[in-house]
This record gives sequence, C-alpha cells and structure tokens, in this order.
Amino acid sequence: MWHQKIIQLKEKRRGFHLITDEVLSALPEMTAVNVGQLHLFLQHTSASLTLNENCDQTVRSDMEQYFLRTVPDKGDYQHDYEGADDMPAHIKSSLLGVSLLLPISQGRVLLGTWQGIWLGEHRIHGGGRRIIATLQGNS
Amino acid sequence: MWHQKIIQLKEKRRGFHLITDEVLSALPEMTAVNVGQLHLFLQHTSASLTLNENCDQTVRSDMEQYFLRTVPDKGDYQHDYEGADDMPAHIKSSLLGVSLLLPISQGRVLLGTWQGIWLGEHRIHGGGRRIIATLQGNS
Amino acid sequence: MWHQKIIQLKEKRRGFHLITDEVLSALPEMTAVNVGQLHLFLQHTSASLTLNENCDQTVRSDMEQYFLRTVPDKGDYQHDYEGADDMPAHIKSSLLGVSLLLPISQGRVLLGTWQGIWLGEHRIHGGGRRIIATLQGNS
Repeated sequence: MWHQKIIQLKEKRRGFHLITDEVLSALPEMTAVNVGQLHLFLQHTSASLTLNENCDQTVRSDMEQYFLRTVPDKGDYQHDYEGADDMPAHIKSSLLGVSLLLPISQGRVLLGTWQGIWLGEHRIHGGGRRIIATLQGNS
Repeated sequence: MWHQKIIQLKEKRRGFHLITDEVLSALPEMTAVNVGQLHLFLQHTSASLTLNENCDQTVRSDMEQYFLRTVPDKGDYQHDYEGADDMPAHIKSSLLGVSLLLPISQGRVLLGTWQGIWLGEHRIHGGGRRIIATLQGNS
Repeated sequence: MWHQKIIQLKEKRRGFHLITDEVLSALPEMTAVNVGQLHLFLQHTSASLTLNENCDQTVRSDMEQYFLRTVPDKGDYQHDYEGADDMPAHIKSSLLGVSLLLPISQGRVLLGTWQGIWLGEHRIHGGGRRIIATLQGNS
C-alpha cells in the first residue's frame, strides 16, 4: 500500500525542534503497515530534517550554537538580499538534508531509544514548514 | 511498478550545478507513477547530490565558496596522491551525501517551489558522473 | 517483497570503518531481489553511516582528522555530562546522517567502483551498534 499526505508544521523560532510527536500524530494510517517505510520530505531550502537525541534540550541548543558558529550570518555572501540569515540557512539545509527515511514494523517507526525527529529552522522568520509524508509497505 | 535506469551526466566544472532538468528529462517513465518515489543515487565518492535553491546562481557560488573555505585544498591530508582537490572532495561528498529520495504524485516529483536538484562536482576534472535512478510506485 | 532484519555490528574504536562486507554478508536474502532497494538505518545518535572510498585506509583517517578538527571535543558545550566526546558525536551524526538507501539490481547493490559503506563511530566507547536493514523489490 501507498499513502501520501501533507503535514503542515506550526511555525517555529530559529533553532532545532523535536517534532516526533507533531509528525507521527498526523499519521494514524501507519498502524496499518506491517513492514514498510515512512518517507518525510521537507519542501524547503532554508530548513532541515535530521535525527538526533530526543531528551535533553541542551543537545538541541548546543547543535544550534555549533551551526551559528561554523556557518555564521556574517559571512561574505553574494546572496544577501533576503537577509543575513538566508544564505547560512541554505548552507545548513544542504549540510543536514531535508529528507528522512524511517523503517516501519508492525505499525510503528523503528527509531532507536534516543532517536527523535528534529526540524532545523534556519531562518529567523521561516513561517510554517511543509512536509510530504509518504507511507508504503505490506498491510 | 519498478523502473531503474542509468543517467549519465555531462561533465561539469568544479562547483555546484542545477541539474533538475537534465535528470527529470531522462525519466519520461515517471508520468506513469500515480503515488511513488524517485531515488537518485550517484555512484561516486568525490561528488554529491543535494537539494537547494533553484533560481539565483549566487546561492550556488556562495555554497561553493563556503565549502572551499571550510574544507580547504590545503589541508594536512595523508591521502594526496590524486591531487590537492581529492581528499577535500571525499569529505564534501560525505557531508552532502550522494543520494536523494523524492516523493512522486500524479507523475511529478513533489519538489517545493524553490527546490532544485544540485550536483556538487568537487573535483577539478571529475569527468562525467553517473546516477542510478530507481522509480517505484502505483501506476 | 519486503524483508526486514536487525544487523548487530561488532564494537569498533572511534573513527571511520569500512563495513561493506560485514553488512552485505548478513543479507543473503538480497539475491532474491531483481529490482529494488536496500535501506540501512542506524538506530543511534552518536554514530553515522556514510558512503565513501573503499580502498585506501588514509581516506578514512583523513576523514576522522577532519571531523576531530572541525567538531572538536573541546567545544563550549552545555551537554557535557556524558563526556567530552558525546556532544561532538551528536553533531557528527547529524552532519553525516544515519541512513543509506542503495539501489539493487539482479541481487546486488549497485555501488560505484570506489564506493563502500562506512560506519562513523564517534564515541570513544560506543559499544556495538545496531542497523535495521529493510529490503524491498521485485523478486
């Protein structure tokens, strides 16, 4: 079976956000999948999806500090007419990626004990972000 | 249905290149897919595939400058017998990745408004690069 | 057909390791797939999976040196109670990713001539790591 839907995320401030529950609660159809996959695809070029620690908020803030330091707003960018945070956001989006593929077994995604789904919001005012979720598998 | 084919890209100079049209025009079979996925897999270790802005050329040149600066040719690399651009190319390939998975609906890939497919050519003389494209879905 | 299994990797020291044989030898079921995909999903947040050069060991040691230099243990991290190598490991895991999707044709993964599967072990004592392997395709 194949099932595809749009998940519209609520607007978030710049930084990394744990969105496991916001995403999975939008996919009740997953319970029908015995063995399969969930594909999450973010339709943006200045935000990202990644998997990381699902518990301690300081991991997310340390991650944000790392990226602010290594991909600084004050770079010598040609592409600057959308604001100082725009070109760094494009770079972070490519470094982290915008797509996750998660294995499904017996209706649930097989995340590790400490794995959570993170949204990287790399713009100061990014607005609501959109994910295309595609489920497939044996029902 | 499953459909797999080789896409041979034209040789490109070092830097980031928008290849959306070059790739998608090689896949007329996609129009038969109602709901599905397109997997693009680059068979190389010194180039990359990523999604990013599809319009302004300065985004691609700023991206290239960022990677030339943070993964410099003049690193203190042991692996240097293939040229100063070789080891940095391997690093960029792993940072950016060589594989993209794109959702398909009604015969078209669901890229966001600003998303395009980029080839990162990280060698000075990389030659023509090869992608394995795998289509699957409901027809 | 769908086939899913757990691959338990042997414990490895910090650094990058070529695990192509360790992974593929655990998947004899792949020979039954005519056209399809192999998904490898690492259930951890302080290690990574990537594709890179399958021959020269210095590529793996240069890669490790690059990441030790650019994501240093001596960062100014808030999240430090699991050791100085922990937060850098989380950052490297997101930079490199934990998931690979490989095309299959006639029972074999279509890796390029120089491509191998690498485990990035980013902890000093990471323990044995676990991969969820999901095979699908036409048999």
